[in-house]
Amino acid sequence: MRQISGGVCAAKGFTAAGIHAGVKAGSSPEKNDLALILSETECSAAAMYTTNRVKCAPIYVTMAHLEDGAAWGVVANSGNANACTHLSHEKADEMCAAAAAATGRAPRDFVVASTGVIGQELNIDAITTAMPALASKLSRDGSTDAANAIMTTDTKRKEIAVEVELGDKIVTLGGIAKGSGMIHPNMGTLLCFLTSDCAITPEMLSTMLHEVLPRTINRVTIDGDTSTNDTCAILCNGLAGNDLIEWKDNNYTAFKAALTEVLTYLARAIAADGEGASRLLTCTVHGSRSEDAAERLSKAVTGSSLVKAAMFGADANWGRVLCAMGYSKAPFRPERVDVKFCSCAGEILVCKGGVEVVFDEDKAKEILSQEEVVIDIDLNEGENYATCWGCDLTYDYVKINGDYRT
Amino acid sequence: MRQISGGVCAAKGFTAAGIHAGVKAGSSPEKNDLALILSETECSAAAMYTTNRVKCAPIYVTMAHLEDGAAWGVVANSGNANACTHLSHEKADEMCAAAAAATGRAPRDFVVASTGVIGQELNIDAITTAMPALASKLSRDGSTDAANAIMTTDTKRKEIAVEVELGDKIVTLGGIAKGSGMIHPNMGTLLCFLTSDCAITPEMLSTMLHEVLPRTINRVTIDGDTSTNDTCAILCNGLAGNDLIEWKDNNYTAFKAALTEVLTYLARAIAADGEGASRLLTCTVHGSRSEDAAERLSKAVTGSSLVKAAMFGADANWGRVLCAMGYSKAPFRPERVDVKFCSCAGEILVCKGGVEVVFDEDKAKEILSQEEVVIDIDLNEGENYATCWGCDLTYDYVKINGDYRT
Repeated sequence: MRQISGGVCAAKGFTAAGIHAGVKAGSSPEKNDLALILSETECSAAAMYTTNRVKCAPIYVTMAHLEDGAAWGVVANSGNANACTHLSHEKADEMCAAAAAATGRAPRDFVVASTGVIGQELNIDAITTAMPALASKLSRDGSTDAANAIMTTDTKRKEIAVEVELGDKIVTLGGIAKGSGMIHPNMGTLLCFLTSDCAITPEMLSTMLHEVLPRTINRVTIDGDTSTNDTCAILCNGLAGNDLIEWKDNNYTAFKAALTEVLTYLARAIAADGEGASRLLTCTVHGSRSEDAAERLSKAVTGSSLVKAAMFGADANWGRVLCAMGYSKAPFRPERVDVKFCSCAGEILVCKGGVEVVFDEDKAKEILSQEEVVIDIDLNEGENYATCWGCDLTYDYVKINGDYRT
Repeated sequence: MRQISGGVCAAKGFTAAGIHAGVKAGSSPEKNDLALILSETECSAAAMYTTNRVKCAPIYVTMAHLEDGAAWGVVANSGNANACTHLSHEKADEMCAAAAAATGRAPRDFVVASTGVIGQELNIDAITTAMPALASKLSRDGSTDAANAIMTTDTKRKEIAVEVELGDKIVTLGGIAKGSGMIHPNMGTLLCFLTSDCAITPEMLSTMLHEVLPRTINRVTIDGDTSTNDTCAILCNGLAGNDLIEWKDNNYTAFKAALTEVLTYLARAIAADGEGASRLLTCTVHGSRSEDAAERLSKAVTGSSLVKAAMFGADANWGRVLCAMGYSKAPFRPERVDVKFCSCAGEILVCKGGVEVVFDEDKAKEILSQEEVVIDIDLNEGENYATCWGCDLTYDYVKINGDYRT
């Protein structure tokens, strides 16, 4: 497996584009806010959505469109969530209809997604007006424009592609994502679109997505707020010519490794670019009796406001790590817990057997001042482990969210 | 029932004191950090503790001391949590022994509690050295000094007392509390000490505390972090001379109303003085099919980082309210939900039937700019309701917690 460029256009047969449609009144003309991805042939498609009881209309529309496990493309906007308004459903339908008209496809060939403010009416006219120009921009170089178009408070574009050999064929898988705020485990918690030229049945694709997402994207938490709009969709058009993946054979395993690689990359990128984040926080819990317990412990630590604020201050306040583990409801023995802080500047043991050890505060400060910090927790009870990703809690998070809507 | 002054010394037979012992190195000599409360007779006693799996040593010591449902006093320090260190348990025992020696009681007559940094060795010498002076300061006017002594990042003292008639007797109930950070529902989530001259059996007292705490103190959330040290203890010495409360009679009901009043007052005071808070956030969910669902919805809204940040910015971002309700896991129908924002400046409907209504943004801003803001949610499904309290998320929360330990 190797990383390549091209994002969602890296795989054979996919084009993409992004454009400024003016979805949000007064938004900068420099900022793309409408994205289109299209395959030249029909794709096996699968998706996972937010577990929030309040779901945006585009999710319901996409669910209906993917009932047959097939799709041709994705249309998505930023600047408005198209959620909790009188006409949300109609507008999601109109978005698909506009994309279909501009590309010669049918409305139900599209995955549709929105991200932005909840509860404000979507400016569908801006979208339908811009759609023909957007469709005419579709190209093999369009992934970056599309990735830019789905960003909201993201400061960095999230885009990746990998190649993997399945038998004697090269299969390519690429993806783009947006994250930043309202990010918390439980499905997608963001927008993420993946494209591949792999030949795979919709059933196997859905199975694979359900295996990989919970261990990658769902292990990111930024602020504990699971959005109403999270969608992760994958489209595979089969143009790589590999033997069709119909069961869990070696090709399934190899392609699953590629999917894990791509989604892990995007999960880390989303965590590192959390709203206001100054550093990526990785928490690995190992030595657990179960992976589930390790995951819950790791999520509690990465999700703790107090741990996150301490990480912002590069403060080796490991007591907050134990406190967060304690209220996670996961089983573990506090008296066996070892905690280390690690980064490119080294590692330092701060807690052994659940109690304090003498450590060099200056060294700890240096370790915690790096761009990526790992909280390494050993439960000393078993063989299972899990890693979750998050970021620190900073003044900028408060600033961004204190007045995001207006 | 009426409010009176005197705090934990308002009831007959109680004295209290606070002193600066120097628990935390370099702390201001102006700041009390050691508190003592003592009854002149034996009390019925009950307590509730954090549900965190990692519990501080003082909780285990207090649990053992209260096995017989009796106590004489409380000894508590701020500046150190006495949790997760090699000698935590021994030091909690030593605190009780020192309090006992200074007052002529036995160690097991005391409730012991600590609050502050986790994982650093408690300076027990400072405490034992200061204890005789602290005991000699015990007086009927000492509640305020004791309340000051248990404060950490609190900016305001939490102290209250009420009188209630039980038959022909006046019974008094008073309390002090500390809150501020690491505050999240699930028992105590703070330190709270209550004293009364009510005559009540330990069994009835414990039953009452378990009925009232979940609807008052446990409905506060500041940051979602349930502390390792939370303790709420109540001591009743019987000196009011009322008929002993042995079952759920009228006196039980009347005294329970007093306890509810006192704990509601302290819950609101803790929420309003949450770390960095600029306003008190109250969320009432009514029209629910069950109180449990109403409580979970209300807690999710008051606990949402995004709602809290929006409240800081006085931004009427009601979509985040619906989003938080949606991920609470509580059952409700989004399409029936009405949301209003209320304060002393008026009230404004911002969402009806789960979707947007046109509202005056300037008016909403004015309403949300007040010191206390109420998010009023009507589920339009049933007759049950619940109220939770929290505060906004501000720059100061991040500042306080970015470098609390050092």
